[in-house]
Amino acid sequence: MHFADVLPLQSGASIRAYDLSYETYGTLNADRSNAVLICHALNASHHVAGVYLDAQGAVVPKSEGWWDTMIGHGKPVDTDVFFVIGVNNLGSCFGSTGPMQRNPDSGEIYGADFPVVTVQDWVQAQARLLDALGITTLAAVMGGSLGGMQALSWTLQYPERVRHAVVVASAPNLTAENIAFNEVARRAIVTDPDFHGGHYGRHGVLPQRGLRIARMIGHITYLSDDVMNEKFGRQLREVALGHASGYKFSTQDVEFQIESYLRYQGDKFSEYFDANTYLLITRALDYFDPAAEHGGKLTPALARARAKFLLVSFKTDWRFSPARSREIVKALLDNQRDVSYAEIDAPHGHDAFLLDDPRYLGVVRSYFESKVAPC
Amino acid sequence: MHFADVLPLQSGASIRAYDLSYETYGTLNADRSNAVLICHALNASHHVAGVYLDAQGAVVPKSEGWWDTMIGHGKPVDTDVFFVIGVNNLGSCFGSTGPMQRNPDSGEIYGADFPVVTVQDWVQAQARLLDALGITTLAAVMGGSLGGMQALSWTLQYPERVRHAVVVASAPNLTAENIAFNEVARRAIVTDPDFHGGHYGRHGVLPQRGLRIARMIGHITYLSDDVMNEKFGRQLREVALGHASGYKFSTQDVEFQIESYLRYQGDKFSEYFDANTYLLITRALDYFDPAAEHGGKLTPALARARAKFLLVSFKTDWRFSPARSREIVKALLDNQRDVSYAEIDAPHGHDAFLLDDPRYLGVVRSYFESKVAPC
Repeated sequence: MHFADVLPLQSGASIRAYDLSYETYGTLNADRSNAVLICHALNASHHVAGVYLDAQGAVVPKSEGWWDTMIGHGKPVDTDVFFVIGVNNLGSCFGSTGPMQRNPDSGEIYGADFPVVTVQDWVQAQARLLDALGITTLAAVMGGSLGGMQALSWTLQYPERVRHAVVVASAPNLTAENIAFNEVARRAIVTDPDFHGGHYGRHGVLPQRGLRIARMIGHITYLSDDVMNEKFGRQLREVALGHASGYKFSTQDVEFQIESYLRYQGDKFSEYFDANTYLLITRALDYFDPAAEHGGKLTPALARARAKFLLVSFKTDWRFSPARSREIVKALLDNQRDVSYAEIDAPHGHDAFLLDDPRYLGVVRSYFESKVAPC
Repeated sequence: MHFADVLPLQSGASIRAYDLSYETYGTLNADRSNAVLICHALNASHHVAGVYLDAQGAVVPKSEGWWDTMIGHGKPVDTDVFFVIGVNNLGSCFGSTGPMQRNPDSGEIYGADFPVVTVQDWVQAQARLLDALGITTLAAVMGGSLGGMQALSWTLQYPERVRHAVVVASAPNLTAENIAFNEVARRAIVTDPDFHGGHYGRHGVLPQRGLRIARMIGHITYLSDDVMNEKFGRQLREVALGHASGYKFSTQDVEFQIESYLRYQGDKFSEYFDANTYLLITRALDYFDPAAEHGGKLTPALARARAKFLLVSFKTDWRFSPARSREIVKALLDNQRDVSYAEIDAPHGHDAFLLDDPRYLGVVRSYFESKVAPC
């Protein structure tokens, strides 16, 4: 959807003439009361559920939406009941206007000149999309990780437009350690000689080295130590003959399975993700901090919220630990909000929010069936 | 000290005509029974205690040894009682033969051709140094982190030469997550265009970008989440005027104090540390695994040890967690070894082993006074 009006941004800058890619699933009911907005995290998109078909009508392999376990016919967020909207955020690289597109003012590819966007800005842009779709009130806004921050921000920016907020594996802001990991990833990208200050597009190159490192760092923080040990442990990729240890004794070749896995993830990511988008989205994570305007106190910061809440966290998530979700729960309870909270004992770390855990999916299903569903 | 004899290495390769830099503190007693060998971790050296003086006899600023809180006159490892030896390991970059030196066979700078060295190889080389110093039996061998692995390995390679082993903040092997962090750091170095396959010396450049990233990653894992939040939190380096948030809204500039700290640490490290050494030492960490030859079982692996042990771990150390030290304690107890174990509730993460915590230093002091001291 194209938006011709200027969107003022939190930074003081603004953006005009932009597009947002979105998908919808299910049918908006007559009183327009069954819409559920899904907000995405770092590297996801508007394609939250279902598969794509090719010209012959065959399913495109690996085209499942990123939250296809959660959303669809008969699933926890049932598209037979709800009208679900997935939207790609401004500054991302999956169809919505971002650094790879041309600046209408200069005719040049934005690159590093794309304005810094925040969680607050994304919510503004999403609200305009809902306006255009004729949706005044959301049955629910929902997201995991950075997506959960957007869901929380919706309840503060548009308290009257949100009946329920589902905030999964999220946090009220980043810790110093979270920011530190983001910063190392950004430095890897920015110091890649192919980055050219963010204008690699003009040089016909891509800072893929930096993106690979950024993604490898990210992947470590998405998994738990336990699940990494269970999946990979100290397993060698191939056992070198001739040494009792099975080691090849090389500093540059792959020895361990975990190395092979990380290199593969880094390579894959660097093929499809835009480096400037990576910088923008990690900065949006860094900047999110609704308590900042209230002297760091979350309770007054969340006083504006009117929605009912479901929060979900995962025991082995050390990126956004359960303690961070409990901070949000506590601040909402301080404000006498209606809050459900589930802490799932899943072994998968932060990644658990994307996985097929029956306890987790069961909690969300029962929340949507018993509380969100239109009567 | 120069060694002319060939040293066969675990990989099957060997090295000849090498030097080891070492320092000693205190006096070897008449029966040569008071020697304590200190083994270093990733980026440390033979300079474990004391300060250097310049030509005018003035103290060189910041020249304190890396374990100066632990070792010296009246300190936990008291140099009035013990003869302490610090040695720089083979492959390191502080004076001992390593990748920056010339291969005597080719006359070329080793660079990436320096042979892969392991904890076992370092212990072999250290044993030869002791032979040359006329020391048959160590009162104690001691180290933290990777240094603790060397101390443990001493008790297996030379059970009859070690009376006590002090193993601090260490582990019986690396987990998949530990290896993963090492691998990302190595990839950052190896994919730096200035790395030139490890032969940057021949090109007159240094892969400093990669080293910076490697060090930044390392630093995050050395600190605890708590201490990072306490020291830096979400504090901005400078508050930008004109925005209520105080943010500058930049993806490439420093916003948060933690970013500034990490960049500084990365810059400093890239000025003095050798990239090939970084690869070698992280690989030595990856490879260390005494249980591997015993089907992954640590108890039979440690059956050869004859020393008495002190193990120390730190509650907030998530790199080498207390659980990893307890694995060693359990395997030693299974073998009826004499083991003391202290778990220190310090907030500083892995770094705690280098810091001035009175409980930690007190434990080591009392162990040396009551158990290690010559009668």
